[in-house]
Amino acid sequence: MLVVMEKTATPEQIQSVVDVIQNRGYTARSIPGGDRVSIGILNNPGPVDPSLVVGLPGVKEAIRVTRPYKLVSREVKPVDTLVDVGGVPIGGAHLTIIAGPCAIESLDQAMTIARHVQRAGAHLFRGGAYKPRTSPYSFQGLGEEGLKILARVREETGMPVVTEVMDEATFDLVEAYADMVQIGTRNMQNFSLLRRAGHSHRPILLKRGMAATVEEWLMAAEYILEGGNGQVVLCERGVRTFVNHSRNTLDLSSVPVVRKESHLPIVADPSHAAGRRDQVIPLARASVAVDAHGLMVEVHHQPDQALSDGAQSLYPEQFELLMRQVTDIHAAFRHSPALVRNGSGKGFKGG
Amino acid sequence: MLVVMEKTATPEQIQSVVDVIQNRGYTARSIPGGDRVSIGILNNPGPVDPSLVVGLPGVKEAIRVTRPYKLVSREVKPVDTLVDVGGVPIGGAHLTIIAGPCAIESLDQAMTIARHVQRAGAHLFRGGAYKPRTSPYSFQGLGEEGLKILARVREETGMPVVTEVMDEATFDLVEAYADMVQIGTRNMQNFSLLRRAGHSHRPILLKRGMAATVEEWLMAAEYILEGGNGQVVLCERGVRTFVNHSRNTLDLSSVPVVRKESHLPIVADPSHAAGRRDQVIPLARASVAVDAHGLMVEVHHQPDQALSDGAQSLYPEQFELLMRQVTDIHAAFRHSPALVRNGSGKGFKGG
Amino acid sequence: MLVVMEKTATPEQIQSVVDVIQNRGYTARSIPGGDRVSIGILNNPGPVDPSLVVGLPGVKEAIRVTRPYKLVSREVKPVDTLVDVGGVPIGGAHLTIIAGPCAIESLDQAMTIARHVQRAGAHLFRGGAYKPRTSPYSFQGLGEEGLKILARVREETGMPVVTEVMDEATFDLVEAYADMVQIGTRNMQNFSLLRRAGHSHRPILLKRGMAATVEEWLMAAEYILEGGNGQVVLCERGVRTFVNHSRNTLDLSSVPVVRKESHLPIVADPSHAAGRRDQVIPLARASVAVDAHGLMVEVHHQPDQALSDGAQSLYPEQFELLMRQVTDIHAAFRHSPALVRNGSGKGFKGG
Amino acid sequence: MLVVMEKTATPEQIQSVVDVIQNRGYTARSIPGGDRVSIGILNNPGPVDPSLVVGLPGVKEAIRVTRPYKLVSREVKPVDTLVDVGGVPIGGAHLTIIAGPCAIESLDQAMTIARHVQRAGAHLFRGGAYKPRTSPYSFQGLGEEGLKILARVREETGMPVVTEVMDEATFDLVEAYADMVQIGTRNMQNFSLLRRAGHSHRPILLKRGMAATVEEWLMAAEYILEGGNGQVVLCERGVRTFVNHSRNTLDLSSVPVVRKESHLPIVADPSHAAGRRDQVIPLARASVAVDAHGLMVEVHHQPDQALSDGAQSLYPEQFELLMRQVTDIHAAFRHSPALVRNGSGKGFKGG
Repeated sequence: MLVVMEKTATPEQIQSVVDVIQNRGYTARSIPGGDRVSIGILNNPGPVDPSLVVGLPGVKEAIRVTRPYKLVSREVKPVDTLVDVGGVPIGGAHLTIIAGPCAIESLDQAMTIARHVQRAGAHLFRGGAYKPRTSPYSFQGLGEEGLKILARVREETGMPVVTEVMDEATFDLVEAYADMVQIGTRNMQNFSLLRRAGHSHRPILLKRGMAATVEEWLMAAEYILEGGNGQVVLCERGVRTFVNHSRNTLDLSSVPVVRKESHLPIVADPSHAAGRRDQVIPLARASVAVDAHGLMVEVHHQPDQALSDGAQSLYPEQFELLMRQVTDIHAAFRHSPALVRNGSGKGFKGG
Repeated sequence: MLVVMEKTATPEQIQSVVDVIQNRGYTARSIPGGDRVSIGILNNPGPVDPSLVVGLPGVKEAIRVTRPYKLVSREVKPVDTLVDVGGVPIGGAHLTIIAGPCAIESLDQAMTIARHVQRAGAHLFRGGAYKPRTSPYSFQGLGEEGLKILARVREETGMPVVTEVMDEATFDLVEAYADMVQIGTRNMQNFSLLRRAGHSHRPILLKRGMAATVEEWLMAAEYILEGGNGQVVLCERGVRTFVNHSRNTLDLSSVPVVRKESHLPIVADPSHAAGRRDQVIPLARASVAVDAHGLMVEVHHQPDQALSDGAQSLYPEQFELLMRQVTDIHAAFRHSPALVRNGSGKGFKGG
Repeated sequence: MLVVMEKTATPEQIQSVVDVIQNRGYTARSIPGGDRVSIGILNNPGPVDPSLVVGLPGVKEAIRVTRPYKLVSREVKPVDTLVDVGGVPIGGAHLTIIAGPCAIESLDQAMTIARHVQRAGAHLFRGGAYKPRTSPYSFQGLGEEGLKILARVREETGMPVVTEVMDEATFDLVEAYADMVQIGTRNMQNFSLLRRAGHSHRPILLKRGMAATVEEWLMAAEYILEGGNGQVVLCERGVRTFVNHSRNTLDLSSVPVVRKESHLPIVADPSHAAGRRDQVIPLARASVAVDAHGLMVEVHHQPDQALSDGAQSLYPEQFELLMRQVTDIHAAFRHSPALVRNGSGKGFKGG
Repeated sequence: MLVVMEKTATPEQIQSVVDVIQNRGYTARSIPGGDRVSIGILNNPGPVDPSLVVGLPGVKEAIRVTRPYKLVSREVKPVDTLVDVGGVPIGGAHLTIIAGPCAIESLDQAMTIARHVQRAGAHLFRGGAYKPRTSPYSFQGLGEEGLKILARVREETGMPVVTEVMDEATFDLVEAYADMVQIGTRNMQNFSLLRRAGHSHRPILLKRGMAATVEEWLMAAEYILEGGNGQVVLCERGVRTFVNHSRNTLDLSSVPVVRKESHLPIVADPSHAAGRRDQVIPLARASVAVDAHGLMVEVHHQPDQALSDGAQSLYPEQFELLMRQVTDIHAAFRHSPALVRNGSGKGFKGG
């Protein structure tokens, strides 16, 4: 942390800031500048709360210099993490496709869609048994019955299944049935749930909060890793902005940032970002081209009869088209080695 | 809901939309326009999911015409709700001030601050026992020990206490000690927690989510009312925007909107919105002037030694000043009757 | 426009709204609903200002049903517009690459970079002669000298040139030298400049405003078309959001939306969206994959000595890599016909 | 500027950054930290472009430490600027009210409204002669005829008048008629217009851009001061956010920030922020309570017949109410001296 003092700060005020820092057991290093003094805070084991010094007399602002995360950081673990979901890898050079309906509605519905997406090339099956709904009057999911249907789908198709958990109370149950446990957007900073996920033996799919910075998102993952579970996949699903032509704004720049800052894999969910069918395929292509490790896509064979989010679900034929296009795109720029791919290789003059 | 068809929609496509609507048991009414047809959906008991029709061939868009909430709506209950927190009212013409430290750190700290804020005129004491922290390495609160300290503060000062609950697992405990249970920003759409709050016998303070629309916020309150607990106070605490000079952007227009749409009281939290001390008093004045029913303010006698959020905590002397100013402002525009106050009275020509 | 009345609206209030609408010469059509009345406004030649009725007694809200734009609309002109920039086409199935430095600094600099980007496959050369700078103390461009350098580059390389115009006063001059005139983000709603562009004989590159909805952006283009100039290319360059890891957030969903709503071509500018070099190539790939008609990319042979925006400029070697990757991606999903490409073809069941 | 190096940066990379800084004529000071090196840039006369170093090998990020503005800064001129608009002061302890219709429609309309607002206590009359409109098909203002009507209003009522200028071409004309020239939201970064305003002999009302940070806004004012015109008033009018219950989100925290950072006065425009009548009075009260130096409010005697923005215009009776309320509020907290008012006085322990 760098503490920038006012131009008019007195030596007493500067000393007072130094004292506060040292009283916490950190090192304070004064840095005289052209027309003002700054004070560096060093040797702090964890992140420093800016409120330690902001508001003290003579302090203009506190600027964080280092990242607050540790275990998720690529500086700590330089090698990519490969997550194993019931035998299906996410991470590295794989392009892993997760597909299925928004909500599990019946065995027949789930199985029909599962066979469609599997035939088209999906690797994992998704479907909600517990649904977070804005309205208490909307369909809330089949609960345990939905989990049992998921298990049947896995049994019959061999595809591992991904489903969302909404609270600690049902975590054991979800964990018992699912191959990968999803923590949804609205729960990204449900810290009790994150701690529980840290003790899970299942890989976790952690969606980005609707207003979360990448740093906050990585800190949420840090809770899980800190608890002992290193199998975490991040999922970019759009953030809330003023833009009104899509439900959320898919922030694809988060992909190169997460890849740079962290060793965890990151996939994209174009369905929830768009909120409407006609943007899903273009955004899926873009997500693969930006080099996400995979996609999560909603598919329904009868979207107009879906119990939730039908408007953003692809028809099976559309999903087939998506699969062909993203596979081709992935192949198209994947023939160059990774470092070259992002143009950050050593070979570049100065770059 | 109004379904707007494309100009080029065929009669078959229009009929197909009408069929989908009627298959759900709703009434479809076709409205021929100048150059396109719209279809109104009527007689729907609850909210209609736009995905019922968006994405169907020939559909341009679906526009929601009515509000999805019921129990929180002023259309359902025109009279203001008055919430009773251990004998202290929130709502109506009262200006209720909740003050205290971000986190309970010790009995001595809590009692010192409580006596300060009580002397200055605060009605309720706040303090966190369970703290939602972005980093797993930050101070997470004293837990039950903090709740016991809160109970001691109430015993000695007579002030009812408000504290946050973070999960269902600790809800019983928090409920046993607190006079009012707070659901924090990050949990505004933790629907399992909202359902639990619906069965609580304590009033609930529901903070607005960082990226929540007023409609989503009211729908979160609807979960609580639907569960049977009508004692809910909303708390505006700023939303996330591109603005970087304050931690969040206090959206004061939410106050007249909530007052118009709902019968529930609404208070403002300038401390979390600002994130820095020097904006708290101005924003507190503005919150009272916009006609919030109260304030929630962080106060600490030694902010530079606070274990969390010290930078936004007022010194006791500053809180005294705040109290004097907001009391004067509240008095200043409160001598006119309520309808006149907002300029929406019947007396106005045409308005 | 649909006027939704309050549930409690009286027959007199409804009649009063009908009168206001008819006094303007429009048709009012009353639509009785389940528990409230709505009133449709028909036969309005141009857009209706919501303020005609919002605020009238008994009115809950006014919902716009049709789009306010005409000439830019695909409903008016279903066929894609092809823009011709000095012989280079933008639009249709072409992928057009515009590349060059942020600012023209010298003939030597411009020519060096031009030869680099041309060799790598760029079609148009860009470079600023007049630079909009946040600070009055920053380098403001070479002005007419910069324009002359651009003309020399065209002469020697044969590449048509694109450069920004900042005001009406210099429009004639810019127009005289440039093959395509750019209107920048900060001037997207400089309506006097847009009107002047409407009388230009040069094609216009219209960048999206930092906080502009697609509708506002298309309305800005409408000003140009309304003035008589139909050669307009839209450029998505990111919008301002709370996200802080990139300078702006590239909103790639605007591409399918613009393609659906308008016949005008749309290109993307990953350099300004990112603001930092290491995100430019990934975002360029994503832009092509989402099916933008082209890219605008900043390239500098000595970015660390650039007079503006060096941090986001690619090295020539990186630009070569970008060209190879985007060409491959464009080829990869371009072998399917356009309708199939976006999954909106007639062949789909129901979709 | 502080340049933070990667943990893995080599001594050669660090030296290379130092070289780049010194080649620009600045001083580079290396600051060894716990696990990484930072480099301070000193003795730079103007702002340093981060692109000087961002993107260089080994550089993690560049953090700006000082503010880029000079002439508008309170560090340069500690005393409040008082702006004189035809004899009416804005700034200091005054509460200055600017009121009138959105657009001048006729002499009769202007005069009627002017007499209303004057009687209610307004100090300045506003009204648009040139209107920036999203649609080219909307009413664009009366032009010079509108300016003449403004002059007549001033003549008859004695109230100085404020009106918007949209381009350099009409600046002379507007300047000839108006007592204060307004630069609108969409032109906040129209740098040619700002430069022209810098040579004006009229005070300038500079509205905040819809997506502008306070820093960018102050830099826009810096253009005007740098040109020689020190009479600038800033106007907060809301920023664009995801919030959809008001047209924009009034960012009242900008008021204490501007007051702290700059000596220029700041007023608020609740009409454009709200976009709907029923929020204007509450937001006006809040703006005065947050300690803005004044208000700009739209008033129309027949809002349902207004040619633009009628929905946000107050009826004359509502404006009277507003005047009474804001006057009372201003008086209520103005009896304490300024320093005490914001709780930042020397008397506070540590604060």
